[in-house]
Amino acid sequence: MSGDASRNDAAPGRLTVIGLGPGGPEQMTPEARNAVARATDFFGYFPYVERLALGPHQRRHASDNREELARARAALDMAMAGREVAVVSGGDAGVFAMAAAICEAIDHGPAEWRALDIAIVPGVTAMLAVAACVGAPLGHDFCAISLSDNLKPWELIAARLRAVAGAGLVIALYNPVSRARPWQLGEAFDILRGILPARTPVVFGRAAGRPDERVAIVPLAEARSDMADMATCVIIGSPETRLIARDGRPPLVYAPRSATGAGPGSTDRPS
Amino acid sequence: MSGDASRNDAAPGRLTVIGLGPGGPEQMTPEARNAVARATDFFGYFPYVERLALGPHQRRHASDNREELARARAALDMAMAGREVAVVSGGDAGVFAMAAAICEAIDHGPAEWRALDIAIVPGVTAMLAVAACVGAPLGHDFCAISLSDNLKPWELIAARLRAVAGAGLVIALYNPVSRARPWQLGEAFDILRGILPARTPVVFGRAAGRPDERVAIVPLAEARSDMADMATCVIIGSPETRLIARDGRPPLVYAPRSATGAGPGSTDRPS
Repeated sequence: MSGDASRNDAAPGRLTVIGLGPGGPEQMTPEARNAVARATDFFGYFPYVERLALGPHQRRHASDNREELARARAALDMAMAGREVAVVSGGDAGVFAMAAAICEAIDHGPAEWRALDIAIVPGVTAMLAVAACVGAPLGHDFCAISLSDNLKPWELIAARLRAVAGAGLVIALYNPVSRARPWQLGEAFDILRGILPARTPVVFGRAAGRPDERVAIVPLAEARSDMADMATCVIIGSPETRLIARDGRPPLVYAPRSATGAGPGSTDRPS
Repeated sequence: MSGDASRNDAAPGRLTVIGLGPGGPEQMTPEARNAVARATDFFGYFPYVERLALGPHQRRHASDNREELARARAALDMAMAGREVAVVSGGDAGVFAMAAAICEAIDHGPAEWRALDIAIVPGVTAMLAVAACVGAPLGHDFCAISLSDNLKPWELIAARLRAVAGAGLVIALYNPVSRARPWQLGEAFDILRGILPARTPVVFGRAAGRPDERVAIVPLAEARSDMADMATCVIIGSPETRLIARDGRPPLVYAPRSATGAGPGSTDRPS
């Protein structure tokens, strides 16, 4: 009996959550590329799954952006059936992406899902690619906050923005806008204008590392929500963030390695 | 005159700051590998420079960890002399690493340094690699804070820890301990124990992605500073962080994609 069990009705397969990196294949690690080569079935948001160069034995199961938990469950089911499943995310799989959805599905799913071989392959997340385009805006203490209020109340997001800006952290905003969430980014800028200096550099980085890359730097006073779209990561400096003007080259934006906490606008910081 | 200027006394060269990734070559992007192949002179902290497989025409200029600004200036000088200079960091070059030191040196250096061709190649930073080892602890809002008080006052670090923990962000600590800074991590745990639930998962990830990788998960109540060394990244959960126990496998730690801000210990969060 044990000798003739085929792969599909014997031991469960494996599920690997893979961060594809922010841009082209140049920014995907060999570890991620090898994990893609090994898998038989690919789950993920349409554009990420379609980006992959797959062989004839590899199957795509693309789905919409807002179906993360259903996608996670379908991927886990297929891994239980003995397939070698890959769940792909742009950037890093662990930052506002599919690794958390897979864990959540396991946490609330059937007990046998806990026996599955789960692996997660990290990648370069969007904020790191955007930061590299302009200098080192994340060179000192910083945070990453999702501006989507689909799964958390706006009041919590606003409170977090006030707390981190007041504490002097640089802020990277993921999911800044979407068709269903048109006003949140403008509101976030308004909140931050009440705390940070008007000249604080704001970086809008769209599709960093891809052919349609677009990067803009504006002072917080002039930052508007229509400067971002779904594919943009927005980095907002701290009172200590500096901008270096350069003739004939774009400016550099960076966070100094030293911090006093006494930059302008630091009303609620220790003295 | 113009025709016989050799490369070394003519146009300045280029300086590329390269993030080598957290571990072995499997986690270094092709973009970083290609940038290494192109450079003639390598600046960086000893272990990173020594890790590189270089050709006979490529020169190492390794230096100590605490000499970042002097190293940045030497690298910029050499690029001005027409060399193809690489400044390397482990992980991502933009996160508590050399990209900020290079910008700082340019900001305060001679005007001609602003004319240099500066490029930054992002990499997988340590916290992403550590997170991937255990699940998705950075799956929702999080921050990265350096625990080194060499260049910022301890009171500022303590205030930031209180602000971010109170706001419900997961915390990744870089530079948690060193021989010269033995007590800071223990003090940080004490501060956080006053704000976060005792069961909050704390992940100690050492050398993630390398052969000597070591990962431990303990509740905040039991977290001690001697569980970390210089090569460790420490991730401290939020009140919403969950741990999934698994028979015969290490537990998974993750941040749920939804947040109410009403986890236990959330004394100063909106209701």
